[in-house]
Amino acid sequence: MEASPVPVPPSPEARPRRSGYRRLPVQQRREQLIAVALELFASRPPDEVSLDDVAAAAGASRPLVYRYFAGGKQQLYEAALRTAAQELTSRFTVPLAGTPTEQLAAVLESYFAFVAEHDAGYSALLRGGSVVETQRTSAIVDDVRRAALKRTLRHLGVREAGPRLTLLVRSWIAVVEGASLTWLDEGRVLPVGELRDWLVDQFMAMAAATALHDPQTAQTLTTLLALEGPDAPRAARLREALGG
Amino acid sequence: MEASPVPVPPSPEARPRRSGYRRLPVQQRREQLIAVALELFASRPPDEVSLDDVAAAAGASRPLVYRYFAGGKQQLYEAALRTAAQELTSRFTVPLAGTPTEQLAAVLESYFAFVAEHDAGYSALLRGGSVVETQRTSAIVDDVRRAALKRTLRHLGVREAGPRLTLLVRSWIAVVEGASLTWLDEGRVLPVGELRDWLVDQFMAMAAATALHDPQTAQTLTTLLALEGPDAPRAARLREALGG
Repeated sequence: MEASPVPVPPSPEARPRRSGYRRLPVQQRREQLIAVALELFASRPPDEVSLDDVAAAAGASRPLVYRYFAGGKQQLYEAALRTAAQELTSRFTVPLAGTPTEQLAAVLESYFAFVAEHDAGYSALLRGGSVVETQRTSAIVDDVRRAALKRTLRHLGVREAGPRLTLLVRSWIAVVEGASLTWLDEGRVLPVGELRDWLVDQFMAMAAATALHDPQTAQTLTTLLALEGPDAPRAARLREALGG
Repeated sequence: MEASPVPVPPSPEARPRRSGYRRLPVQQRREQLIAVALELFASRPPDEVSLDDVAAAAGASRPLVYRYFAGGKQQLYEAALRTAAQELTSRFTVPLAGTPTEQLAAVLESYFAFVAEHDAGYSALLRGGSVVETQRTSAIVDDVRRAALKRTLRHLGVREAGPRLTLLVRSWIAVVEGASLTWLDEGRVLPVGELRDWLVDQFMAMAAATALHDPQTAQTLTTLLALEGPDAPRAARLREALGG
């Protein structure tokens, strides 16, 4: 997401017709309107952002915004959501270096940066009950969850996940989402580094609980522990917490 | 929830005015309409249930349903949701006998029975994107989650939970919700008993992961493990899965 409208100087043939207006190429104007909308949705829930707010913040007229988004605020919201979803999905890329849990920590850090950036919009979207929420917006969110599932399974070296391993990863993703919402709700008082480490420990712990019910997860966890190094310190600390 | 309309024989002064219609006392009629609506919402998503469907299934006219629910389907849906929420909350009661994890298992069993009963309605509600979803319906769902949180903390013997212990219990509740949705999605192929035990193991594992970051959770887990008996077999199996 761009933090500010694209700073393009008006070309001689595209002089502003009214003070404060600038002509931008179609695709650029579209992206600018989406960027401005995302910025507004980040500071206020989508229900409290009007099309006029977006037009004003973009230095554009209401009719101009309608020319790009004939469906009005709903269409603009969905376009903005799609842009944000693409950006979030691109952040799921796992770094090459590090043990599996170090790599997981790096992806989580990038995820929390996204959450911090989109704040109110992220919160309203996942919390539900907004007037802009439709089956289409739910489908976009589900696509992101599916991408996160796929990426995590690939990270674990799993090709065909059975129902129990899938349930484990889906559950962990739900825990990540819930933790990020709680983090925003509570004014970000919990340090991101602690949440990140807590979520990595949760992954290992939840995998262990699932391994008790599923040979595929047990095998995956064994491989993961081996990659963590000879002492797998996170696992050792978990065993200790369990009275070991 | 009643499985069928309340079977009250018409009294002499309340003869059916039209074939198939029965006069019921106000409160009883209201409850009957809600029960019928809940039954319909269980087999089809709320978006696919019309007020006419409810009237037909209740053996009532459309105007009669409107007399009770002037706000139409939305109001009826919210009333039905409130009834279901009350019923679910009442199921959070923990049995007196058993170890903490046995008690947790009993509550989970009761929860899954509720999920099975409300099926499509439960699924649509938690999945989001339905046209009947509003800030009011989200608030009702949040109240149920808050009740589950409170009850679980009380079960753990915690009076004032800090942010980390609260996050743990909230996260586990999210895992329970997610698992129940997956269970419905997949045509209930995973045995309820296995899911129940998996969720109990998840609780213990997630508590252990949180204990690494929070003295209050560490203390609570130590107390719980002591109550599980001298060998705490679930904890021992988790340690083993973690390479212990």
